[in-house]
Amino acid sequence: MHAKIAVLPGDGIGPEVTTEAVALLQVVAEVYGHQFEFEQGLIGGSAIDDAGTPLPDATLALAKASQGVLLGAVGGPKWDKEPASRRPETGLLGLRKGLEVFANLRPITVFPELVDASPLKREVVDGVDMLIVRELTGGLYFGQPRGRSAGKGGIEVVDTLQYSEHEIRRILQLGFEIASQRSGNLTSVDKANVLESSRVWRELAEAMAVDYPGVTLSHQLVDSAAMQIVQNPKRFDVVVTENLFGDILSDEAAVITGSIGLLPSASLGAGGPGIYEPIHGSAPDIAGKGVANPLATMLSCAMLLRHSLSLEVEAQVIEEAVKRVLAEGARTADLAGQSIGSTGNSPIGTQEMAKRVREAV
Amino acid sequence: MHAKIAVLPGDGIGPEVTTEAVALLQVVAEVYGHQFEFEQGLIGGSAIDDAGTPLPDATLALAKASQGVLLGAVGGPKWDKEPASRRPETGLLGLRKGLEVFANLRPITVFPELVDASPLKREVVDGVDMLIVRELTGGLYFGQPRGRSAGKGGIEVVDTLQYSEHEIRRILQLGFEIASQRSGNLTSVDKANVLESSRVWRELAEAMAVDYPGVTLSHQLVDSAAMQIVQNPKRFDVVVTENLFGDILSDEAAVITGSIGLLPSASLGAGGPGIYEPIHGSAPDIAGKGVANPLATMLSCAMLLRHSLSLEVEAQVIEEAVKRVLAEGARTADLAGQSIGSTGNSPIGTQEMAKRVREAV
Ligand SMILES: CC(C)[C@H](C(=O)O)[C@@H](O)C(=O)O
Ligand SMILES: CC(C)[C@H](C(=O)O)[C@@H](O)C(=O)O
Repeated sequence: MHAKIAVLPGDGIGPEVTTEAVALLQVVAEVYGHQFEFEQGLIGGSAIDDAGTPLPDATLALAKASQGVLLGAVGGPKWDKEPASRRPETGLLGLRKGLEVFANLRPITVFPELVDASPLKREVVDGVDMLIVRELTGGLYFGQPRGRSAGKGGIEVVDTLQYSEHEIRRILQLGFEIASQRSGNLTSVDKANVLESSRVWRELAEAMAVDYPGVTLSHQLVDSAAMQIVQNPKRFDVVVTENLFGDILSDEAAVITGSIGLLPSASLGAGGPGIYEPIHGSAPDIAGKGVANPLATMLSCAMLLRHSLSLEVEAQVIEEAVKRVLAEGARTADLAGQSIGSTGNSPIGTQEMAKRVREAV
Repeated sequence: MHAKIAVLPGDGIGPEVTTEAVALLQVVAEVYGHQFEFEQGLIGGSAIDDAGTPLPDATLALAKASQGVLLGAVGGPKWDKEPASRRPETGLLGLRKGLEVFANLRPITVFPELVDASPLKREVVDGVDMLIVRELTGGLYFGQPRGRSAGKGGIEVVDTLQYSEHEIRRILQLGFEIASQRSGNLTSVDKANVLESSRVWRELAEAMAVDYPGVTLSHQLVDSAAMQIVQNPKRFDVVVTENLFGDILSDEAAVITGSIGLLPSASLGAGGPGIYEPIHGSAPDIAGKGVANPLATMLSCAMLLRHSLSLEVEAQVIEEAVKRVLAEGARTADLAGQSIGSTGNSPIGTQEMAKRVREAV
């Protein structure tokens, strides 16, 4: 197969980890006889520095013309005090909206070899395997009006949590579809005891459940879900939720695994290219030191192969390769050194870890 | 001292635990020579059933005429499908707004005897002692407009996250004041990389920090805070945040202690009566069985004595009494039976636990 892949390294450790990910995809292409054409674009803080805007038109055009977008990470203290239009995150939000990738899939899995790196007790976290389906182009992130004005007693400020029926329907539907391919257990998370948008969300979910007799739908309030993710994470299979709730809960869920440096994500739309990125951030403190964990980005490549190119075998080969190098004891610093209950293996760098995965492929 | 206390038992286990809490306050009154006058009012689902509304006018009047409100819990499956105007939670929100209790204080402490009941590893959670200061009468809970309408393509729905400058200022100020009385470490949690309201929040916090040279202010994004609460909860001292963020994070933080049945809360306004309630819910599944843990409500009484009546000694006497009965091994079912790493003590009921605390006072 021939495919165009847009590569947006971004800021901080983004360039390091995407370089390794591209090298991995090149190996996969060779082994399986594909042709992947990579083209790089600017995004985030580095785009602000080089092009004056966090999402240059050329980047959006490049992304739209591709079959899948591989993204590193955006953001850093350098741009933290800027107004919205000159913030790295605005570039990422613009890209999501521009590609209309309304569904962010975040698999939360615990790797058996790394379970002791979790802050949670082994018996609580061992075996966790959930998938968070986060709405990504609506809700509190994009609703209008948003902004500040001068009132009689000082600043007045609003943000708006806004949804139209079709936005809620399409993300719920994806949740149901995915749940029916997994254990058939879908948890819809909302705040229906307070928010009107959540009440609509819940009603639409209830109505849709009739079409999926094989799926058991349950509802949970977001505060209660935040508790259950710590207390009993194994009870979750597929979780579907609003943009901001998903942002908070998926980061919380990621950290219970003890290995956030390993977790990938996919952002999918209706037909167009998806965005694939590690869920960790740009980690400016370790950028350029060659110690960042490349595995989350490599596993994001597996999701790209699966969801955007329908190359399931190749996707699994990457996932198996990552499991193998972990089983063999390879650990980057985030997994080896500081983690609680570490195995004490001496850490390897970004390039060495990536090389081992490529060899395992 | 003579004081009027409004007692709103509410739903589920609310009546059981408030009965014991009132009995405790009566003992305190006797021992220390005070006169507490208790008057009961309806709220929540039981108020809907008896008076057709979750917050009868008489209840609000009673609360306003009191020096402090002791609340059990509201809600239950019976009223889950009702519209907003006939939901138990609407009564609670109305009471908060009616008394303008803009600050919800949630102390998150780990009791040494119960640390093994936590889903987190002992070394992660032992010694946690944080206080969440949640804004309670604004933000996404109360902003206007909110509601649904029929658009061309189906339902359109909005909720609004709204703040005026003085609302943000007064909660931040309380956060700074409390932090300066504790370790001087204040974490303001927001989502300033996405929300305009958070940017205003952050700017106001920065500006205010100048007036509190003894307090070290740091900012954290809500998704990152959700991670840190699990990964490294000891890093937090005082946390101040928006209403919904506080709802989610305080429940998450509560559960890491392993003893949510012990955690109290106080909701305070500017001068008027405060509301004191356990942070656990109405627990309809165990209501009426005499097994509910009364300690969170009893510790809420301590907060009432401290914050609304300035009876610090009496407040501490209750807190010490609770510590003593726990040290002696007394456990209700939530602490003894099902918890991870339980000590195996055979559980005692609501009344027996409450009696031991009264005796210790
Ligand atoms: C960088 C930020 C805008 C983004 C978000 O809030 O969506 C990030 O936290 C994420 O989860 O991908
Ligand atoms: C019952 C509900 C409306 C309430 C809230 O969301 O504030 C509860 O979760 C709480 O935290 O006190």
